[in-house]
This record gives sequence, structure tokens and C-alpha cells, in this order.
Amino acid sequence: MGGYKLASREYQSEDTVISLGDVTIGAQELQIMAGPCAVESREAALEIATIVKKGGARIMRGGAYKPRTSPYSFQGLEEKGLEYLADAANKAGLFMVSEVIDTRSVDLVASYVDILQIGARNMQNFALLREVARLNKPVLLKRGPAATIEEWIMAAEYILAGGNKQVILCERGIKTFENYTRNTLDLSAIPVIKKLTHLPVIVDPSHATGKWELVNPMAKAAIVSGADGLMIEVHPRPNEALSDGPQSLKVENYLQLMEEMQDVARCMNRSLGKNSGLKKTGTEG
Amino acid sequence: MGGYKLASREYQSEDTVISLGDVTIGAQELQIMAGPCAVESREAALEIATIVKKGGARIMRGGAYKPRTSPYSFQGLEEKGLEYLADAANKAGLFMVSEVIDTRSVDLVASYVDILQIGARNMQNFALLREVARLNKPVLLKRGPAATIEEWIMAAEYILAGGNKQVILCERGIKTFENYTRNTLDLSAIPVIKKLTHLPVIVDPSHATGKWELVNPMAKAAIVSGADGLMIEVHPRPNEALSDGPQSLKVENYLQLMEEMQDVARCMNRSLGKNSGLKKTGTEG
Amino acid sequence: MGGYKLASREYQSEDTVISLGDVTIGAQELQIMAGPCAVESREAALEIATIVKKGGARIMRGGAYKPRTSPYSFQGLEEKGLEYLADAANKAGLFMVSEVIDTRSVDLVASYVDILQIGARNMQNFALLREVARLNKPVLLKRGPAATIEEWIMAAEYILAGGNKQVILCERGIKTFENYTRNTLDLSAIPVIKKLTHLPVIVDPSHATGKWELVNPMAKAAIVSGADGLMIEVHPRPNEALSDGPQSLKVENYLQLMEEMQDVARCMNRSLGKNSGLKKTGTEG
Amino acid sequence: MGGYKLASREYQSEDTVISLGDVTIGAQELQIMAGPCAVESREAALEIATIVKKGGARIMRGGAYKPRTSPYSFQGLEEKGLEYLADAANKAGLFMVSEVIDTRSVDLVASYVDILQIGARNMQNFALLREVARLNKPVLLKRGPAATIEEWIMAAEYILAGGNKQVILCERGIKTFENYTRNTLDLSAIPVIKKLTHLPVIVDPSHATGKWELVNPMAKAAIVSGADGLMIEVHPRPNEALSDGPQSLKVENYLQLMEEMQDVARCMNRSLGKNSGLKKTGTEG
Repeated sequence: MGGYKLASREYQSEDTVISLGDVTIGAQELQIMAGPCAVESREAALEIATIVKKGGARIMRGGAYKPRTSPYSFQGLEEKGLEYLADAANKAGLFMVSEVIDTRSVDLVASYVDILQIGARNMQNFALLREVARLNKPVLLKRGPAATIEEWIMAAEYILAGGNKQVILCERGIKTFENYTRNTLDLSAIPVIKKLTHLPVIVDPSHATGKWELVNPMAKAAIVSGADGLMIEVHPRPNEALSDGPQSLKVENYLQLMEEMQDVARCMNRSLGKNSGLKKTGTEG
Repeated sequence: MGGYKLASREYQSEDTVISLGDVTIGAQELQIMAGPCAVESREAALEIATIVKKGGARIMRGGAYKPRTSPYSFQGLEEKGLEYLADAANKAGLFMVSEVIDTRSVDLVASYVDILQIGARNMQNFALLREVARLNKPVLLKRGPAATIEEWIMAAEYILAGGNKQVILCERGIKTFENYTRNTLDLSAIPVIKKLTHLPVIVDPSHATGKWELVNPMAKAAIVSGADGLMIEVHPRPNEALSDGPQSLKVENYLQLMEEMQDVARCMNRSLGKNSGLKKTGTEG
Repeated sequence: MGGYKLASREYQSEDTVISLGDVTIGAQELQIMAGPCAVESREAALEIATIVKKGGARIMRGGAYKPRTSPYSFQGLEEKGLEYLADAANKAGLFMVSEVIDTRSVDLVASYVDILQIGARNMQNFALLREVARLNKPVLLKRGPAATIEEWIMAAEYILAGGNKQVILCERGIKTFENYTRNTLDLSAIPVIKKLTHLPVIVDPSHATGKWELVNPMAKAAIVSGADGLMIEVHPRPNEALSDGPQSLKVENYLQLMEEMQDVARCMNRSLGKNSGLKKTGTEG
Repeated sequence: MGGYKLASREYQSEDTVISLGDVTIGAQELQIMAGPCAVESREAALEIATIVKKGGARIMRGGAYKPRTSPYSFQGLEEKGLEYLADAANKAGLFMVSEVIDTRSVDLVASYVDILQIGARNMQNFALLREVARLNKPVLLKRGPAATIEEWIMAAEYILAGGNKQVILCERGIKTFENYTRNTLDLSAIPVIKKLTHLPVIVDPSHATGKWELVNPMAKAAIVSGADGLMIEVHPRPNEALSDGPQSLKVENYLQLMEEMQDVARCMNRSLGKNSGLKKTGTEG
């Protein structure tokens, strides 16, 4: 292992903690980022924001720019989607994370979101990494589906070296020969990341498994392996979702997971970041 | 998915529970199988049995026939090793599991052990599967390092179809492009196995990760993902181990893990099978 | 790399050449091993032997003991199958290779065949490797579907270290995330094997690709990458084959491939081992 | 398989042939793209152009924008590099291909090169795919290191659907558990691509294997498996290369390969595109 400096435990022994108002990522509190794969309308965004908040999560996720394997699949609502998401999150007192996929729209996306997401397929889009490195906003960096842990840390190093110290890593499964699950969730990567780096790391069991019924056990296992939080897909009507329905939790399953996460958090001497009401005005961007 | 019958939830909806005296595998109690990669001497076996018992595990693991990548590596003490293991386990009141690697020695190994292990590389050694299917003893079937979940269940089906219903599955990591860990532990396989089959399933974080410092978090995550137990390598002096030293827990780390497992078990509404003293005489084969 | 000695180029700089009567494997002549996945009857064996010979191959392949993923699939005719194969090969003047899957039947299989095959799933069945190492007969060692090149050479080392110097390696595809082909044929392994070892190496494009229409181009590419021969599945009526029909060449495609292989051989300054009529009496076993 | 339309054989049965002046890609002539991993100076570009031309290749490759795993590695000379490359190629009468890594520099790169390359890590950088789809210039689309054949064709479909029909696919190895080679070259992808699509496909054995001594056999095997050409790294002094030295051919090995390729081409009833002198003025961008 080698090559990275700023990301290493040798360079910085204490954990990096990222703050959004009173929400911390990488400290004692676990943070859940929940929401739909893609935002589909203003009403849908508002509906989901209410659900997300009801479950107690503090951060809403949702895609406006969707990197899709096929050019004929729904590609997201783009800026309109960001608007809906930001508005819904704001009304519900939630922070918001959304993906950016083009160097040219980094500033635009940054003007709406609290955390910029770099998707798995863009983990080694070095032009994009350099562009978000210019910002003073947290970046959530998903592991590429075929990236080694070292390559992933190296991608984080691009952002750190560019001047942005607020990097959150997100494990979301790697490609293997196994085909029952969409990808193979690599939970051993969590303690490895914690040993090699000082960065917070979360887990996305929805994309990793591709099957909603595996999300609950893998979410818990992720926390027990040391993750600082989760990214979870929730949809009020998964069957009607424009993308990734089969991996989205229904509302009842999301609420149950959030309930059960309390015990898991306690078991790890951590607590679950709970929505205390409203996000304080003025904390975002 | 398809092809298997006897192993499926459709064929048998209730969980298979395997009993060794008062020890159950696949029921409410979690079972830990602990011990050295390979038994090295009579004294070493006795020393480790005492440690295993002290930690509270009920089952001792240890290799007498070692499938090694190189013909020049230590291949195990063979029958002498079984003798040492059985004797040490017996004195400590522990049950014992050890690997069988040749159809010709199935009866011999079965005369010493409580559970026969089929190693990962022999998961599709169909002649061996057919041979252990003749026995009335539990078989622990490790997942091949490149086996899909379906192929693994199919290998179990060979044993069930041959008449032996006492099959325990063991996830031990799969081969991927990641090379920081020895293999990639596939914990999502646990809820998948629980959904598709009625068989008990345990996890071996030692072989999966190849690094002792990852064993503790992965052991806990395995239980939280739904595993019925663990297989753990322990060695009083890992640096002197004749095989797999880097992945063996030291005594203090093993004892600490067993202590911490109590909380994890409670968190899952399960209890940790604890050694209550002596294995009742006459319970084994 | 390391660990192996007898298999290495350092230990023996000149190529190992294996002889069966006037047939050589690993010398200037390319050898084709052709036949059905599994022998299905005496008549089928005779029919295929005639076809194999007509195409010009010198060695007939055919399975009598079939390692099948499912216990409910056709498992081969066992000794009867060997009898049919040996008889058919003998009548057609062909040498014969067939798989052995159990230590207990090594001597039996060896009494029928000219070359013993160790299948991919048994590459690390070390008990079996040690058993064929006792023989004075060539062994064809298939690469395990998840074996690194180094592990594969190490498996060969088991046979060499046991006293049998007649080892032929066979690349047959490795497991990857790609699922259009059954496995991913690793042709770069061929020049690597030629550099690291002195052993002959052949390629099995039928099992590697799992699709008959890919066999022709991959067979040629294998020779051009330096392979000493091929193992090819041929079946007069692939649709009726008891196993692996989709990857078997029809007769006309086999004959065409053999015709086209002449050009490829010439291109590599090699010649195609051609059946000159009868296998000389008394050359086998 | 499915989802793509414009790329499929069903949509267009005849092969797509791409023309650059008198150079055709995807027709009877094989085309070799040769040059350094990265252009390092004006002098180096001129030196290599002379070598490339001497060997007979018609197209020069060279990186100006280098996607590097580490932010601390040499990232290329950027526009200066394009200038050197274009100038050197022009003087030598060669066409030129170079990589584009950012949507914002697509027009700039297009103003220098004859073919725009989308690198493996950007295969699913959909914003970039959409941007090059606007151009009227050939695009060379490398397969992602973990992309299935279907995902790769889908990425091509993005370009075709955006209006650019001039897509060349390039296989460059996939990630597997094998670590002797940098990646595993998947030559069976070539006949698969030829069956499923009408697009030309070439092979890059340099990046696939990561070892110069494997380039020659894999280059030949690629042609025999049906590839329309090659992309090869050549460097006059590989030990001094600023990137990927170990996989670059020395001049003498490049010249020898080009010589030997003539036979391979003949063997496939194809001819090797040979530099007849000068690229006709005015054919490029």
C-alpha cells in the first residue's frame, strides 16, 4: 500500500469529522442518508422527504443526474430534480446529498446540495475529482465496482490534494462472479479503511445487493463492521419507481429498519443521528 | 435458481437444527468453533483446548490433513493429529471438527471427529461429497473460493441426496480482484442462504480476511447478518504457527472477542453457546 | 512467484516433451484431443471415434466419470464408459484421455486410458494429485476456474514432486464477472506458462466459452498464443448430448476447424499431428 | 442481451467501416495504432513518430491527458502534448489518436486528433460519451476494466444514439483474481462483439497484460480471434518512460512484431495497413 499521503492515518491520526449544522459524519453519531434512487416529481420529493424525516434520518438522498447503463433509460430530471429535492429537504428540515456527473455542472449542483456525490462509475473520473476538490463542501465518494481499496483511497487523495478535506467514503459492492446479488458487498473494506485512513466511511446496501430484502441485515452488519452510516433507497411504491425499484425499501420496511438500527447503534456504543425537528436555517450552502 | 430440492425452503420450511449432545447448531444458540489452523503436537492441542474452553466455545477446530497450495508446505500430522485433537477436545469437554480430504479416509476421520469438514477446495469434489453422505454425522461444507451460492447449495444437495441431512454451510470468502484481504468475505450470502435453504450457516472470518485484526469486526458483522456461528483461528503464538499465523487470533484477542460476542448475540436475540463444564460422556460418535 | 521448483524453467530449461507412441505433446507437432463431453453408449463412442479420426486428431477425449454441479445430472457411465471409449479409440487407432475423480479409481482409470485428466474442480484435490503422481502415465491437469497461474503450477508441482514428470497443463477459462461466456478464456496464461515452466500446455475453448460458435476463433487464437494443442468437444448431435451440448461442435464444424488449423499451424511453424492410420499396437498402457 | 439497438447486427447487418483518408478501420486491412503511453516532449514525439512509421503503422497513439491512479503521478502535457503529437504525426504522415477525459476539452482535443479515445475508466462517463457523440469524428471506446460486453456495447450505443456512427471498440483486459498479468485479456470478447454488433473492434495487449514480453503473442492471438487492429505501446527507452514503461515494446521488438504481423494477417486473409509514404494533406480535422 502506498502512494497516498493526506488520506493516511500516518498523516492524520485522529478521525476526520464532517459537520453539517448539528449533524456530524464520522463522530459518535451514525448518519443515515435515505431517499429514492431518482427524484421523479415535486410531489414525490415532498412525499419521500416526509417519510425520511419520520424515520429519523437527517440526510435525504436522491438522484437528479442519473448515470444509466442504457441511453434509453430515464436519465433524471437534472436541474429541475435538484430544485425539487432541495425544496423538499428544506421543508422537512433535512440535509441533502445528490450526484454530480459532469465537470461543467459541479457549481450548479453544489448550489443546491449539502453533500456532492461522486458515483461509483465516476470514481476514477479524475477531471471530476479535481473539480469537486475546489469546493468547500463535503464530497461522498463511492467505491468503483472494480476498484481496489487502494485505488479508492487514491481517488480520495485527488480530492484532498486539491484542497477539499471533507471526503466521505461509501462502499457499495464490487463486481464478482456471484450473480445472485447485484454486486458483492465488501464489508471487510470498512475496518480496512478505518485502519488505513482517517476518513468517515458509510455503506450503501441497496446498490450493493440489488435486493430490498437483503438491505436490513446488510445495513446492520455494516454498522457492526464499523461504518459511520448508511445510504439507503426508500420509495413509497417501489414497483412504480423509474429506476432501481427492486432494491428500494418500502416505507414500512424503512421505518422498521430505523427502529432496529437503534439497538444496533447501542450495541456499538454509538447513537443514531435523529431528526430533532428542523434543520437550522442557514446551515446549508 | 433451481436444481436443488432437499436443501430448499420449499421442501422444508423449518430450520434444520443439528445437535451434538446439548450443543445445537442452527437454533437460538450461536456456536463458535475455535482452534488452530493445524494441530502441531499433543502438547499444543492440549494447550489450545484449554484456551478454547476458557473463552467459552463449545467446539474445537483443528486441521490434521491440510490441503496446502505447495507440496513443500507442512501437510498436517494426519492420523496422529486427529488423535491429539480428539484427546485434547475430550479432556476439555469440547466437541471437535476436522477436515477430511480423501474418500479413502472418511471412515477414519469420522471415528475421531464430531463434525467432518469439507474444505473450500473440495466443495466440488463430488466423490468426497458422496462418501460423507453415507455417514450419520454432521458435515461442515465450506463454500468454494469461486463458487456461486447456487453451486454451493448444489454441493450440499449431494450430501442430502446421499442420505445425510446434517449439513452446516460455512462462508469463508470468495476470490475477487481485491488483494488487501486474502479473499472477500461475502456476508450477503448469509441472508441469501437463510432465504433459499433451511440449513444452518456459519462464517469463517479468519480464512476470509487472512488478517487477524479484521477477524473481530467481521465476526460480529457475520452474526448480525444472521449467521448461526463462527469458525475462528486461535493460536497461542501465531508467529510460530506452522500455517496461517497472520490470520490467527492471539489468546487475549480470542477471549476479548468471546466476551464482546455476548453483546452481539443479545443484540440479535440470540445467546452464545457457553461451555458449562464437561461434554457429557458418550455424546460423540 | 515462487515455491515451485521441478516445474520451473530454472530447474529445466528445455521443453518437456511427452510421447505416446509416435505422438508427441510439447514438441513441434500440435495435438488435438477431440470427442464428446461424456460417452453415452458403445455405439456413440464408435461413431465419434470415426469422426475424430476423420478430422485427423490423434487423441480422443471423452468423460466416463463426470463431475456435475447437480447430483441429479447425468454422472457418466463410469467403468462401462471407459470400456466403450478405450475400445472405440483402439479400433480407430486413437490415443485416449479421460478424467479421474477419486483416489480409489486411479488405477482402474489408468488401466484404460493413455492420459489421465484431472478436472478443473479437482486441480487442488491434493490427495488425487498425489495419487496420479505415483503412475508412469501422462496427466493432463486442467486449471481450476479460480486458480491463479501460480497455484496451477503448484498443483503440477505436486505431481512432479511425487515422481511423475509427464504433466500437460490445460487452460479452460477462469471465473469473472462476464457472463456472456461460461468462463473467460485466459490466453495470456499460455505465454506465461511457457516462460515460467517447461511443461506442455493446451487449451480447451469448449469449456472456456461454453458456446460452440466461439470455439473456432478461440482454438486458432490459442495456437497463435503458443499452445501445444487443443481439447475440443465434438458431438454428432449436440442437441441430444447428455451434457454440455451448447458448447460442442457439430461434425462439419469440427472437420472445418481441423482443416483451417493446418494454416494456423503453418503460420506458427508447427504442423498438425495427423492420424496416419493406426495407432501402433502395444503403445498404450 | 438487449437494450441496444443502433449497435446491433439486427439493426445493421453489414460491418461499419471507418475511413481516415485512405486508411480504413473495420475493412479488410488491419490497422495498428502505435506510440508511447504518454507524450513527454516535442523531441520524443518526433522520435517515436519516425519509429512508428518505420514499422509501417498508419496511426500514432499517445497520451496528452493521462488518467492516473495517483494524483502525484505524471498527468500528461495536456494541450502542449496534443500539439507535439499532432505535429509529429503530421510530419511522419500518420493519423493520430489521443484520449479525452473531460467534457470541457472535447472540442479542443478534437481539433488536434483524428480519433478521440475514451479511456477504460471513462467507459461509463456518460456525460463524456454524450459530448463526443456530437462530433463528426471517430471515437475509440475502450472497454471498462469491469465492464461486461453488454455494458460496453451500451456505452457505444450512447455515442451512436447521440448521432456519431463512427465508433471503434477496444478490448484492453478485465479485472480478475489473476495477478501475474495486469488485467486478463478477454479475447473471446472479439468474436462476441463481431456477432452482436457491426462495429470494428481492436485490441490493446499492452495495457491488458502490463508486460511487454506478452505483447507479441497476444497481439497475434488478437488478430486471429478476429480483431480489426491493435493498439500497441512503443517507447525507445522503456526504462525512462514517465508511465507504463514495463508494458512498452522497445523499438526492435516493435519492428519485429510488425514484420511478423504480415504472416498473421495473411493467415487470416487480411493485409496489414502499411504506410505508403505520406498521409495525404488535408485529410485530418
